[in-house]
Amino acid sequence: MVAARKKSLSKKSAAKPAKRVAKLKGLTPAQAYKDLIAYWKRLATFGSVGSLLGWDQRTYMPSGASSHRAEQLALMSGMYHEMATSPHVKDLIAAAGELPAAKKEDTVEAVNVREIRREYGMATKLPQTLVEELSRATSRAYDVWVEARKQNDFNTFKSHLETIVGLTRKRADALGWKASRYDALLDEYEPGATKAEIEQIFAPLRTELAQLVGEIVSSGRQPDPKILNADYPAAAQEKFCKEAAAQIGFDFNCGRLDTTTHPFCSGVGVGDTRLTTRYNPHDFSGALFGTLHEAGHGIYDQGLEAKHYGSPMGNSVSLGIHESQSRMWENFVGRSLAFWKYFYPKLRETFPQALSGVGLDALYFAINKSQPSFIRVESDEATYNLHIILRFELESALIEGSLKAADVPGEWNARFKKLFGLEVPDNRRGCLQDVHWSGGGIGYFPTYTLGNLYAAQLFEQARKDLGDLDGQFSAGEFQPLKGWLNQKVHHQGMRFRSNKLCEKVTGKPLDHKYLMRHLRKKFGGLYGFSA
Amino acid sequence: MVAARKKSLSKKSAAKPAKRVAKLKGLTPAQAYKDLIAYWKRLATFGSVGSLLGWDQRTYMPSGASSHRAEQLALMSGMYHEMATSPHVKDLIAAAGELPAAKKEDTVEAVNVREIRREYGMATKLPQTLVEELSRATSRAYDVWVEARKQNDFNTFKSHLETIVGLTRKRADALGWKASRYDALLDEYEPGATKAEIEQIFAPLRTELAQLVGEIVSSGRQPDPKILNADYPAAAQEKFCKEAAAQIGFDFNCGRLDTTTHPFCSGVGVGDTRLTTRYNPHDFSGALFGTLHEAGHGIYDQGLEAKHYGSPMGNSVSLGIHESQSRMWENFVGRSLAFWKYFYPKLRETFPQALSGVGLDALYFAINKSQPSFIRVESDEATYNLHIILRFELESALIEGSLKAADVPGEWNARFKKLFGLEVPDNRRGCLQDVHWSGGGIGYFPTYTLGNLYAAQLFEQARKDLGDLDGQFSAGEFQPLKGWLNQKVHHQGMRFRSNKLCEKVTGKPLDHKYLMRHLRKKFGGLYGFSA
Repeated sequence: MVAARKKSLSKKSAAKPAKRVAKLKGLTPAQAYKDLIAYWKRLATFGSVGSLLGWDQRTYMPSGASSHRAEQLALMSGMYHEMATSPHVKDLIAAAGELPAAKKEDTVEAVNVREIRREYGMATKLPQTLVEELSRATSRAYDVWVEARKQNDFNTFKSHLETIVGLTRKRADALGWKASRYDALLDEYEPGATKAEIEQIFAPLRTELAQLVGEIVSSGRQPDPKILNADYPAAAQEKFCKEAAAQIGFDFNCGRLDTTTHPFCSGVGVGDTRLTTRYNPHDFSGALFGTLHEAGHGIYDQGLEAKHYGSPMGNSVSLGIHESQSRMWENFVGRSLAFWKYFYPKLRETFPQALSGVGLDALYFAINKSQPSFIRVESDEATYNLHIILRFELESALIEGSLKAADVPGEWNARFKKLFGLEVPDNRRGCLQDVHWSGGGIGYFPTYTLGNLYAAQLFEQARKDLGDLDGQFSAGEFQPLKGWLNQKVHHQGMRFRSNKLCEKVTGKPLDHKYLMRHLRKKFGGLYGFSA
Repeated sequence: MVAARKKSLSKKSAAKPAKRVAKLKGLTPAQAYKDLIAYWKRLATFGSVGSLLGWDQRTYMPSGASSHRAEQLALMSGMYHEMATSPHVKDLIAAAGELPAAKKEDTVEAVNVREIRREYGMATKLPQTLVEELSRATSRAYDVWVEARKQNDFNTFKSHLETIVGLTRKRADALGWKASRYDALLDEYEPGATKAEIEQIFAPLRTELAQLVGEIVSSGRQPDPKILNADYPAAAQEKFCKEAAAQIGFDFNCGRLDTTTHPFCSGVGVGDTRLTTRYNPHDFSGALFGTLHEAGHGIYDQGLEAKHYGSPMGNSVSLGIHESQSRMWENFVGRSLAFWKYFYPKLRETFPQALSGVGLDALYFAINKSQPSFIRVESDEATYNLHIILRFELESALIEGSLKAADVPGEWNARFKKLFGLEVPDNRRGCLQDVHWSGGGIGYFPTYTLGNLYAAQLFEQARKDLGDLDGQFSAGEFQPLKGWLNQKVHHQGMRFRSNKLCEKVTGKPLDHKYLMRHLRKKFGGLYGFSA
């Protein structure tokens, strides 16, 4: 049977915005609130169709479809923007804000009105011309960056970086800021975060991490390199990854795991959360920890309350808190000795030849190997955050105007030398390695380290609340931790900003000492220095 | 990295219908035509997003996502209907119709305006209440039908069939008709076709097919049943199916083949045509001929001209012509001896054990086995059209009011006995077997047989135009036939209605003699009677 193109959509009616506008006059605050939530849910459902287009584009789409896919995405995003910036929404927000419950602090109604107001404000503050200019500039810059990285040629990328920084500064000005222009950009990914706050936490973290890395290097120890350079068939890896993700609590009835070059997690909608990973046939660790990482994002997504779908109470807090979930399952759980007490026998059953003669301790050391290196995405738990701090310092200086695009390579290399004790051999392994700046994603990097910091602080609290977490992991019991995260984090939606959520759950504002405590304990044990 | 839900769509601008309406006044016919085509292309692109949702729903969607998928589809179809019935389109059609080129016969402009006018007319003629009533009735009836078929219980389905027939009669009246109410329904799938025309062709076809089937039965011959009841591993079948589809001309750079319970072809958009099939590990033929069938649809879809995408000149003529393409590749090519002269050595390499000792002629007989049976989708090339004629007679009588829903089983069984010489043992193997009526798809069935008839007539013409087709197939050369179909059928878009296209290509109106000639020749040879 042929699924005829024009018959593919039946003819049900959609709510018509025009009618709604006509009805607004004389709407009670309660009705306005109800309409606002329904409208926002409709918008989320519409946006979720775009998410599926994106997932398909990176998984199963035939290569010949790329132009048509670009057309589909442009159409959908244009319509989305139009819906999200409708003047009607402004009226609904104003009317719904008069609801008594919306005037209290942190009630469902207050949170929803507060966050929709914020999102609507951000969407309407940006002039359409600037949005289009940035879209064109980043489309061009991406292609140039791909080639520049390949050719190790910063010069061709330089003027594009200048243009993007210039337009992004305008973007920050349109969004508005007080202390630093960079704050406006941070706020898009980490609502309410400021450069000053982040600097205050990153400064001591930077010092103590550099000290830790120094101790690791001077220990002279390293795990056996043969363990993660053996024969690990991809099909067996995939099976193991799926079993591990299911065991920690990712629900495969409401999700999938597929293969892509660049792993990601896409929350398509209620009951539809899709992970991807990639397989190296000589090293299982990339696929497995990648899967646990994305499953951490996915468990957050699956933990959002379906009844609040489409409204801020059913959305995640920030990229930092999202990353705290992925890092917690990847590093604090997945790279722990307790986790491997349970999983190592299964791993050996899966790869009997590769792991013949390898003991639990040797494996545990191998998957926690730490060593200064040039590439962020290949770095380890101890060195990772230094890569981020470097990027944060440079991009905030670019946005504030104290660093010129042309000076990025020199500044990168000098700072890298200080942080890691290594000479950057070329820009490909230096300032050209990441995609973010070419896409205008300035302000995104710090959320990775915020994620690690929140993960550490939340995890220490979970240990207090849940008793013997290590004993639970050793027995394959991950439900207590997952349930705790569901209740403390996922079900809260956007009720609290990230720092406030952290205080509510742990009793303390965000502090770098939790992460350092975790890292010194783990790496002190492995590399033989005092925690 | 997490693909944050709200960031998944960037903020490009979409053309705003409101602005367009304001601009319409004083538009030249040329500008109106340009705007109309652009609008229709935008609508097609929007609809193509819905196609991807449908494809994903049947292939990779997690089961837990079904409710959210229903929400996505309802929203998209509602918005689609709103766009497709915008009053603005009516104005554009009227203005574009004044274009001199649009007043000539069968020019690109004339075809586009003519067909958009038709589609717009059909979409706007149906009252919204009736559309919604039918949608609810068919949703309910589908679930009841699934259960009724399982339980072999026509009685619970009866009242639902009555309701659907009643609403479909109203639907036909809203669309408008002259000679028969059934014509209005036919016209949706096969523009311009009428019951009277179809009856005129089906009547002699019915008689001659019954005669042919009688000769097959009385021959007493049958192929060796062991050939298609052996060990055919699914993975090897999949590889073979992909190679065969690629060899006949399906472009896998612009398409895919996946696995589903109910095979289909979905033309998602330019460069994106997706086929599905299913694998029976004891019989390769279902998967292979299913793949060739869907690839036939897919080759048509891939042959539509990309420059006309979204306009009628870039769309397929009708379901009958679409089916002619799938049946031609499945039956006229795929089940021919010439095809197997090329492919049989490859099939034996793929399944050496199952086909050990099986000669080409034995295989050719096995894949062309004919025998009266109860289930349409399991029937063969010789008996298939009798199943369709039965359904056509019954559904047109239901719509015209000369048959009551309650009398369907009795009438079905009596007619079946006359056509096939078999007693229908139960309604599960009788009038409850097909999904179409429960979904309101009345008027669809005849397009299957029209497809076979058009395929036969076009194929005989291709033989005349292309010389030794059998010689070409035996050498693995399918490009001449594919190129001929591209030029004669695919690139024509909707320029001609199906019967006119047939006359343009073959010089004759549709006639049943071509199909009968093909069938008598093939089955006469296999079963030992004179062609």
